[in-house]
Amino acid sequence: MSFNTFGKIFTFTTFGESHGPAIGVVVDGCPAGLAISESDIQKELDRRRPGQSEVTSPRGEADKVQILSGIFEGKTTGSPVAMLIFNEDVRSKDYSKIKDLFRPGHADYTYSEKFGHRDYRGGGRSSARETAMRVAAGAIAKKYLAQKGISINGFTREIAGIRAEKTDLSVVEKNSVRAPDLAAAKKMEAAVLKAKEEGDSVGGIVEVIAKGAPAGLGEPVYYKLDSKLAEGLMGINAVKGVEIGSGFAATHMKGSEHNDEMFTSKGKVKFRTNNAGGMTGGISNGDDIVARIAVKPASSILKQQNTVNKALKQTKISVEGRHDPCLCPRAVPVAEAMVALVLMDLYLIAKARKG
Amino acid sequence: MSFNTFGKIFTFTTFGESHGPAIGVVVDGCPAGLAISESDIQKELDRRRPGQSEVTSPRGEADKVQILSGIFEGKTTGSPVAMLIFNEDVRSKDYSKIKDLFRPGHADYTYSEKFGHRDYRGGGRSSARETAMRVAAGAIAKKYLAQKGISINGFTREIAGIRAEKTDLSVVEKNSVRAPDLAAAKKMEAAVLKAKEEGDSVGGIVEVIAKGAPAGLGEPVYYKLDSKLAEGLMGINAVKGVEIGSGFAATHMKGSEHNDEMFTSKGKVKFRTNNAGGMTGGISNGDDIVARIAVKPASSILKQQNTVNKALKQTKISVEGRHDPCLCPRAVPVAEAMVALVLMDLYLIAKARKG
Amino acid sequence: MSFNTFGKIFTFTTFGESHGPAIGVVVDGCPAGLAISESDIQKELDRRRPGQSEVTSPRGEADKVQILSGIFEGKTTGSPVAMLIFNEDVRSKDYSKIKDLFRPGHADYTYSEKFGHRDYRGGGRSSARETAMRVAAGAIAKKYLAQKGISINGFTREIAGIRAEKTDLSVVEKNSVRAPDLAAAKKMEAAVLKAKEEGDSVGGIVEVIAKGAPAGLGEPVYYKLDSKLAEGLMGINAVKGVEIGSGFAATHMKGSEHNDEMFTSKGKVKFRTNNAGGMTGGISNGDDIVARIAVKPASSILKQQNTVNKALKQTKISVEGRHDPCLCPRAVPVAEAMVALVLMDLYLIAKARKG
Amino acid sequence: MSFNTFGKIFTFTTFGESHGPAIGVVVDGCPAGLAISESDIQKELDRRRPGQSEVTSPRGEADKVQILSGIFEGKTTGSPVAMLIFNEDVRSKDYSKIKDLFRPGHADYTYSEKFGHRDYRGGGRSSARETAMRVAAGAIAKKYLAQKGISINGFTREIAGIRAEKTDLSVVEKNSVRAPDLAAAKKMEAAVLKAKEEGDSVGGIVEVIAKGAPAGLGEPVYYKLDSKLAEGLMGINAVKGVEIGSGFAATHMKGSEHNDEMFTSKGKVKFRTNNAGGMTGGISNGDDIVARIAVKPASSILKQQNTVNKALKQTKISVEGRHDPCLCPRAVPVAEAMVALVLMDLYLIAKARKG
Repeated sequence: MSFNTFGKIFTFTTFGESHGPAIGVVVDGCPAGLAISESDIQKELDRRRPGQSEVTSPRGEADKVQILSGIFEGKTTGSPVAMLIFNEDVRSKDYSKIKDLFRPGHADYTYSEKFGHRDYRGGGRSSARETAMRVAAGAIAKKYLAQKGISINGFTREIAGIRAEKTDLSVVEKNSVRAPDLAAAKKMEAAVLKAKEEGDSVGGIVEVIAKGAPAGLGEPVYYKLDSKLAEGLMGINAVKGVEIGSGFAATHMKGSEHNDEMFTSKGKVKFRTNNAGGMTGGISNGDDIVARIAVKPASSILKQQNTVNKALKQTKISVEGRHDPCLCPRAVPVAEAMVALVLMDLYLIAKARKG
Repeated sequence: MSFNTFGKIFTFTTFGESHGPAIGVVVDGCPAGLAISESDIQKELDRRRPGQSEVTSPRGEADKVQILSGIFEGKTTGSPVAMLIFNEDVRSKDYSKIKDLFRPGHADYTYSEKFGHRDYRGGGRSSARETAMRVAAGAIAKKYLAQKGISINGFTREIAGIRAEKTDLSVVEKNSVRAPDLAAAKKMEAAVLKAKEEGDSVGGIVEVIAKGAPAGLGEPVYYKLDSKLAEGLMGINAVKGVEIGSGFAATHMKGSEHNDEMFTSKGKVKFRTNNAGGMTGGISNGDDIVARIAVKPASSILKQQNTVNKALKQTKISVEGRHDPCLCPRAVPVAEAMVALVLMDLYLIAKARKG
Repeated sequence: MSFNTFGKIFTFTTFGESHGPAIGVVVDGCPAGLAISESDIQKELDRRRPGQSEVTSPRGEADKVQILSGIFEGKTTGSPVAMLIFNEDVRSKDYSKIKDLFRPGHADYTYSEKFGHRDYRGGGRSSARETAMRVAAGAIAKKYLAQKGISINGFTREIAGIRAEKTDLSVVEKNSVRAPDLAAAKKMEAAVLKAKEEGDSVGGIVEVIAKGAPAGLGEPVYYKLDSKLAEGLMGINAVKGVEIGSGFAATHMKGSEHNDEMFTSKGKVKFRTNNAGGMTGGISNGDDIVARIAVKPASSILKQQNTVNKALKQTKISVEGRHDPCLCPRAVPVAEAMVALVLMDLYLIAKARKG
Repeated sequence: MSFNTFGKIFTFTTFGESHGPAIGVVVDGCPAGLAISESDIQKELDRRRPGQSEVTSPRGEADKVQILSGIFEGKTTGSPVAMLIFNEDVRSKDYSKIKDLFRPGHADYTYSEKFGHRDYRGGGRSSARETAMRVAAGAIAKKYLAQKGISINGFTREIAGIRAEKTDLSVVEKNSVRAPDLAAAKKMEAAVLKAKEEGDSVGGIVEVIAKGAPAGLGEPVYYKLDSKLAEGLMGINAVKGVEIGSGFAATHMKGSEHNDEMFTSKGKVKFRTNNAGGMTGGISNGDDIVARIAVKPASSILKQQNTVNKALKQTKISVEGRHDPCLCPRAVPVAEAMVALVLMDLYLIAKARKG
């Protein structure tokens, strides 16, 4: 298994640096016969690309995807699907100033310690630009799962402590912060713009809900649905926490409150509550799958900070360039993609395990 | 990769059911020449076994471990180390009553849906009894890492909303709830006993700190230190959330507060704060590695609950037997083990990657 | 993936040394609901155990298997099936003489170089005793595959240049060398006994035929049926070559002779010849799957040989003890097991890939 | 692990079809700091590309490689190295005739049975064109290994029964069939051209020798050097057999002849013979590593053959187009690449295992 591969049966492998020639992904294990076009992929990428609104980075990338393999006459053939985005707006000069500096909160220092030789341009491989390829891979998973009746929707639950109290999925794509509550969205947007003005950034919480997944997805005991979601979501840039269902709130509850009582309706098992977030024992139970991630405030800020340089001298830094004052809106499609990619893998595995 | 295996170079594979003949583990990839005895393993198992105090289940298991392979003349040979615990206190009759019932909060229903044929005795494979073998495997990792100057300590940070404000590792093994703060420990213990009396249970937060890990552990981008910790920790029974460093608290901070400023001390890079929890870009930075898990209140409670049975009829259930009113104290050695197992794997991988 | 694990969806992990307390295997990924008993396993083990006839080692092992997990009420539950054989006849003294010697043809020297600390008793982990656990795992695969109409039969095609010209499967278990041709078997047996008398050993060829496998098993391009068979079969102790279908004989043929012409019979595609050995492009074609292995003459011989010892001094060695003068007869069930294990894994994967 | 990935620590993942837009590879796990240029890669690709001589296919592909990632300022960064070749000479019309036919010896039928929807252009994914990317990946492995003193050389040992009796590596690149014996080369070339004239093809044997590998490469018992070589080599298109060292010839030898006697020379262990092919117990012993593959006669021949079409009607076929009458010369760099890729992976793993 490559270090840049995720999954077991349905897998994807990404490559590419922020300011190199291109970024790409190889998606493997997709069943043959799925209709996939570049526009299916592009639609999702457009939700992640920079420059969508005032609250996102103005880096001018069209992020135009090309499919290089695995599709014939519009349908998957069972062979790996490779997709590529050539980097366009790679103003390398922007970064020359910080070539020998370690930006606080970034991976500059750890990559330097680990690898010695480092591509410092825009964070190189550690840049969140890599997540575009997860979105591309996720678009295939989403399309497959949709045909099985499974939908995956993400949104911003909270920014800077401002919480979306409603969960109205229909408004998510209609506000710049991707909140499911228009009133909260306004306040969130104001908080983001204020931070931006101050040369600072804010954090928040992104939530993903998958509806329609059958019971039985997830493999005990080291390929569980919850552990795979945790792995996939924690690996997204800037994520510092992952919770499933009740999450950390569970720690304040009694067992009698937390246990989801079961009943039957039309011959099917149902749950009164969904503290489990759609799974017990690491296996889906047929209820909505609910996951949440803690997104830290973006590390790239204009405010001056203390740091050290490659020569281990103390110095000051102010991260110029085109950055996101809040990462949540663009993290939404990435989190959706990771949930889709985990579910797709587990869906195919569950078929193999059926006997 | 087996569904019951964790890791890439240093791996472990567990087997066994709560009330079957035995549980066991095969630990593979340990370098040759490490001195390991059964007492090294037993010492850690004794911290996890039931019956340690009033706040844990009274199931009378000695959990005596046997090493079956991979050790010769007291040292590892580089071959797989298999360890076995024969189950002793398997009062299967305790469980016959609930053979056809799905216990709320447990995996009875999901295993039944997934596998059809289910070992209902004590939860079978879904029982937390399996975690004993992670502790056994973790004991080997801990011993190896200790020789490299890496220590791993866990404790209960919070129970039922009562928080340990101090972090005094020296008192952790001196109180029944394994809190690093004796004053808080007393209150936590009282809360647990009260819940037990009510036939109910409480949740809490367990924290693990690894000290002494070098910078450079973790592989971008899908074998990151944080994503592997998240995978390993979320997979522990009853865990609903994982955070690294600042975790969910990060979502309320500004970038200028959250970024850990760097400075140098005696020619080494240091950080003013540790919101990163010891890693950026998924690679360790040399600071303490800090992870926390949300442990839900135990699902097995005496209080009567509504549920359904195998025939999909609604019914009531009261889970009798010997259960833990709070899972945190016994989760501490399990969480430590998982952190040790992740670090050991990444430590060996980092060596391979050095060139 | 553990270094001691084979397979992707249906996997097995072995452990144990020749003269340690026990050898064992953890079989994972078997679908739930398969009826398996210890006698299903024992039946196959009895074909591999020593002491079956004059042509095999007289080591007195009953090789009695115990199932420790994964079976409930006689059927698999989908959880890992662990099996154990306690070593009985471990006359460690037999081996003390060669503790510091490197036996020619054996892995003593390479284990010593690689691991430093070495279990020298009977070859430790490098002993062919480990293959008993492949046979145990293979027994489960065979039973599952039989229910899908797939049978797997091995036999000795050649010993010491004496070739079985007939392929009469009904006589294989009726002669000590497991040849499918009684006339040839007699000559082979004589050749083996002559070598034994001379304190020497002979080699041969084992063949396995799988009938009834559907078209479509094997995944392009790095999980092909032929490459997985090659991996599995080459890894058997003493194997120096693997061929599929025509094998090395293909190198003397013209394309027009070698290509298997296709025709249809009762609406199904058939092949005039089977030079392909049942697969093209690494995917099964519905015809018989045919694999052959070259088994070297056993390295443990009484005849004196030159070698070196741990102190790198030249010396002489004569390998006493109870050894097989020809490894083919006991390699037959091992080779069958490996073919079954590969096919089972690919069978389950093919289901996942169906979409 | 993707189905199109090979290796564990040093891995490569290929994608692309014969007549699609491009073929490519993602090489992961290469240590940082290795100097790699496109010309290092191109040099190896030029040995594999068509049109080198009269005995190879005249398909007019320059096979110009582009590096897309993982290299910065001329050196690897530890991030995945993606390489791409755009397909140029894709005369799709050549193949329209056989769109609905199954070519004997090819994977047309098995891909069709397995995947349903098939890219029939030039064999699509099953085309040996994919092996160009193994050569590209192998070029990186070769360069790394060369710096560790390990060289890898392949050549044609036999074509159509004509055997190279000498092993003069200096002449291999100086004759069209890549034989290490100029006298034999002439005869081989004549045999190939005769077959070509007849619209037929011939097979042969390719051998690879790796010199300078240290003892200790290979992991018992399911990641052995021999089993990984077998897996990697058997997976090359048209290969029907693999042998290590003495290979099938071992089956005619006595143990006393086959065992490689050991002696010491200048304080190092040496072997009188190398029947082991450089490994025992699946671990390298410091001697030359020797592997051989049986290459079947090419399946694409002008001679008319019987076959069936998609509608399962019997018909006749003559495979026009630009094909190789003997695959050996172009298989040489591919086999070298696979050996290099296996050794590189095991070399890095051995470092991790050192403790």
